[in-house]
Amino acid sequence: MTGRGRHTGRTGPVVRRALRLLDAFSARRPELTLSELARHTGLPLATAHRLVTELCAWGAVERGADGRYRVGLRLWELGALAPRGQGLRERALPFLEDLAQITGENAQLAVREGSELVFIERVAGPSAVPVLTRVGGRFALTATGVGLVLLAHAPAEVQEDVLGGPIDRYTSRTVTDPARLRHLLAAVRSTGFSISDRQVTLDALSVGAPVRDRHGQVVAAVSLVVHHGSAAPHALAPLVRTSARAISRALGAPPDRPTTR
Amino acid sequence: MTGRGRHTGRTGPVVRRALRLLDAFSARRPELTLSELARHTGLPLATAHRLVTELCAWGAVERGADGRYRVGLRLWELGALAPRGQGLRERALPFLEDLAQITGENAQLAVREGSELVFIERVAGPSAVPVLTRVGGRFALTATGVGLVLLAHAPAEVQEDVLGGPIDRYTSRTVTDPARLRHLLAAVRSTGFSISDRQVTLDALSVGAPVRDRHGQVVAAVSLVVHHGSAAPHALAPLVRTSARAISRALGAPPDRPTTR
Repeated sequence: MTGRGRHTGRTGPVVRRALRLLDAFSARRPELTLSELARHTGLPLATAHRLVTELCAWGAVERGADGRYRVGLRLWELGALAPRGQGLRERALPFLEDLAQITGENAQLAVREGSELVFIERVAGPSAVPVLTRVGGRFALTATGVGLVLLAHAPAEVQEDVLGGPIDRYTSRTVTDPARLRHLLAAVRSTGFSISDRQVTLDALSVGAPVRDRHGQVVAAVSLVVHHGSAAPHALAPLVRTSARAISRALGAPPDRPTTR
Repeated sequence: MTGRGRHTGRTGPVVRRALRLLDAFSARRPELTLSELARHTGLPLATAHRLVTELCAWGAVERGADGRYRVGLRLWELGALAPRGQGLRERALPFLEDLAQITGENAQLAVREGSELVFIERVAGPSAVPVLTRVGGRFALTATGVGLVLLAHAPAEVQEDVLGGPIDRYTSRTVTDPARLRHLLAAVRSTGFSISDRQVTLDALSVGAPVRDRHGQVVAAVSLVVHHGSAAPHALAPLVRTSARAISRALGAPPDRPTTR
């Protein structure tokens, strides 16, 4: 218990507290007062103030004229360097635009983050069905076309974790039975595409396909979200798979579909 | 010099060191090894390792299969909540697309961050001139169309800081004389648009106009970057100003142009 030892022990908690402060911001709570920040993080007001002052000085957080704090431009700038975010988005965007334009529907791109997915981009065609997704927003892996693809290719421990935990129901058609989900995931792996039929909203279905990197690993998923009844999912699959393959090629994926996960 | 006092004093340095680690990442250096991180931040290897482990656990940084660190998806997600980044981008994008499509040239959107600008979006029309900019990238305020607008409406101390410091030269036509720049800035304020004629590259000129928020404050700038000689800047100005006004309206700006900065 030397002074040095104590200092070493402090590093973690202090950085973690600062990051927890950033966690308080969300799409629902994009702006927070100091006392809201303290409340949402469970930090004493003085600690929250000290940390937010540091974060403001660097630009992670900005203070508006109204005294409220919001996520700062510096974080947006830095976030633009994330290869799985902006880098992937820029490579995929032209293909998503083609997919949305040709079909008139929604083209989506998502990656897995732990046991959830994060939407990286969404391009709405002229006759697109309204969807619940938001770029930068999270969603369960079990319900959507992109989610089923990402879960099907996730490490076994992630699959067990997701299938073992509570599975959210969105509609009467959401598959929440782990055994049925396991069958769906096996089908995704063998056919190369996923179908989520009215599992998120009753007016929409989505068809997803995997995007692979230069090592042949699944790093993202593309989907087309269409009005239920407008097209047979099996008719959409070749379109979505072609788009996913085009993005994979842009990422340097090998031309032959690997058999590995 | 109580224990508590020492702890309070630690908060700043520890958080600052963690943020300095994030600063090591840039468009030129999107991936870094641990020793590169230590070298770029000037931190001892053990400290860098401890901090990067914390940042990885939270998702600010990700470690690739090759052992290199890169900006993590969590930062991209959080950055998407920045009102001056993603929020502004989403509001402005349709107008920028119109501007690029109608003219065939580059439409750009930027905000001021301290004494520099950050490009928030760039939409390239079918016959756009190659430009040096990158979304999320920084640039001097003195040379570009967007920069001149942002500098013209910046607080006096920022203007003094920029005009008093060294002013980068990009071409033989870059204006680097503070007195001439002051005249240019006054013209931007009185005419409502800026002209940067071959100041960044010798084949391009840009025309910029201010974007205002609901308080009438200038929060961003739009520009059109065209091939030099393809159009008279004064002919482009109404187009760019109209686009900037449309974006301002989308942000809730009052219809009459305010006389305040």
